[in-house]
Amino acid sequence: MAETSEGAGKIVTAAILVIGDEILSGRTKDKNIGYIAEYLTNIGIDLREVRVVADVEHDIVTAINALRARYDHVFTTGGIGPTHDDITADSVAKAFAVPIDVDPRAVALLLERIPKDQLNEARLRMARIPEGATLIENSVSKAPGFSIGNVHVMAGVPSIMQAMLDALAPRLETGRKVHSRSVAAGLKEGDIAAPLGAIQAEYPDVAIGSYPTFDPVTGFTTTLVLRSRDEARLAAAEAAVSAMLAALKIRLASD
Amino acid sequence: MAETSEGAGKIVTAAILVIGDEILSGRTKDKNIGYIAEYLTNIGIDLREVRVVADVEHDIVTAINALRARYDHVFTTGGIGPTHDDITADSVAKAFAVPIDVDPRAVALLLERIPKDQLNEARLRMARIPEGATLIENSVSKAPGFSIGNVHVMAGVPSIMQAMLDALAPRLETGRKVHSRSVAAGLKEGDIAAPLGAIQAEYPDVAIGSYPTFDPVTGFTTTLVLRSRDEARLAAAEAAVSAMLAALKIRLASD
Repeated sequence: MAETSEGAGKIVTAAILVIGDEILSGRTKDKNIGYIAEYLTNIGIDLREVRVVADVEHDIVTAINALRARYDHVFTTGGIGPTHDDITADSVAKAFAVPIDVDPRAVALLLERIPKDQLNEARLRMARIPEGATLIENSVSKAPGFSIGNVHVMAGVPSIMQAMLDALAPRLETGRKVHSRSVAAGLKEGDIAAPLGAIQAEYPDVAIGSYPTFDPVTGFTTTLVLRSRDEARLAAAEAAVSAMLAALKIRLASD
Repeated sequence: MAETSEGAGKIVTAAILVIGDEILSGRTKDKNIGYIAEYLTNIGIDLREVRVVADVEHDIVTAINALRARYDHVFTTGGIGPTHDDITADSVAKAFAVPIDVDPRAVALLLERIPKDQLNEARLRMARIPEGATLIENSVSKAPGFSIGNVHVMAGVPSIMQAMLDALAPRLETGRKVHSRSVAAGLKEGDIAAPLGAIQAEYPDVAIGSYPTFDPVTGFTTTLVLRSRDEARLAAAEAAVSAMLAALKIRLASD
């Protein structure tokens, strides 16, 4: 695909690691994966993998180390609050084998929101930052996330995570953006598949996805999504798909 | 936790593997993870990990083999339609190193819905089933999923995946169910954290999660979720939490 095309520009890859028992039990329905995925696509970062793991140190450390070795960026959500089940910061420090302690910069941020007499030991846990990390500010609740190496540690509460992503994004290395076009096919996947496969073979630098939706009354229909870093190739592939669909509709109508 | 308690009953674990570029690009927001997570909890299967990977054979094979070695069940969604980007069945066959071909049982199911003259080569791809697999019927669109070893391959379209899960569930080995109780704390996490940690230490066989929610107007509040296979211990821990919250509210009000 685009990675191997000449002049395709730098490819910057990423993974998301969602940390939290509540997602795995089904009690909380994750809203962060889809948000971050769309955000990264829009700023030119290719999301390649997502993992969800429990609030278990070994699982978090293993996932962090697997993902940070494999991708340019790793974004984590969840587990940075003040309670006993918030073990993300300590787990990340362990993954990087660096010390972790209460960070005066983070304490200063907490004091912007929390009165000094309420800054108890539990709340100070939110200021535990691994050595060498850069803080990620958040305009919503002040308690910061942090970046260490290529790992960006964010909150699990969606509004706070989103504020952190806005603070973080300008600092991220990004790549050449993937552009996309959606085509409502108006036909079933099984009727389109053969000629669509032929177009995909002709345009290896345009990723063509075919997505069925099912309605109990009207049955199946299909949305085609074309994605490429090269806008000219994308336009050419879209034209080929549109011509194919038009011809196919005439043929099916005359059958 | 419960795994090491005497008489805790068998623990059955699982992972979900979501397969699809459209989830990673953010174009489609996944609705299957939360549904399956809740479903598994309700039938006594512990979801331990979720991964999302692209429509790339190497990535699918690697994830399947990692997860099936580690968990009792692996549930996949996506990539079993008729188009060129539907490569899940072939990837699963590769992961298990077994042949794959058009399966007459699957063809018979397709013919219940698709007229014979429309059962073209593309649609027959939906009948490609790895050798040795058991079909998973679906009442919605007829095209089957399949189970091979401990891997259960399902559709990505939510209504179809849900029908497959209903067909599959009675055949699954399940374990002793985890029960849960939710307690609306009415306090901020930072005020609860210390006494809550003490209760968690006293009840290592009850997993206590603390989940903040944030409202721009009213600020933070907290929901506590207690989970255990042992209902008596769960009730005792819940009573301890409720007593702690009541005492804390009195103390905070008098401060």
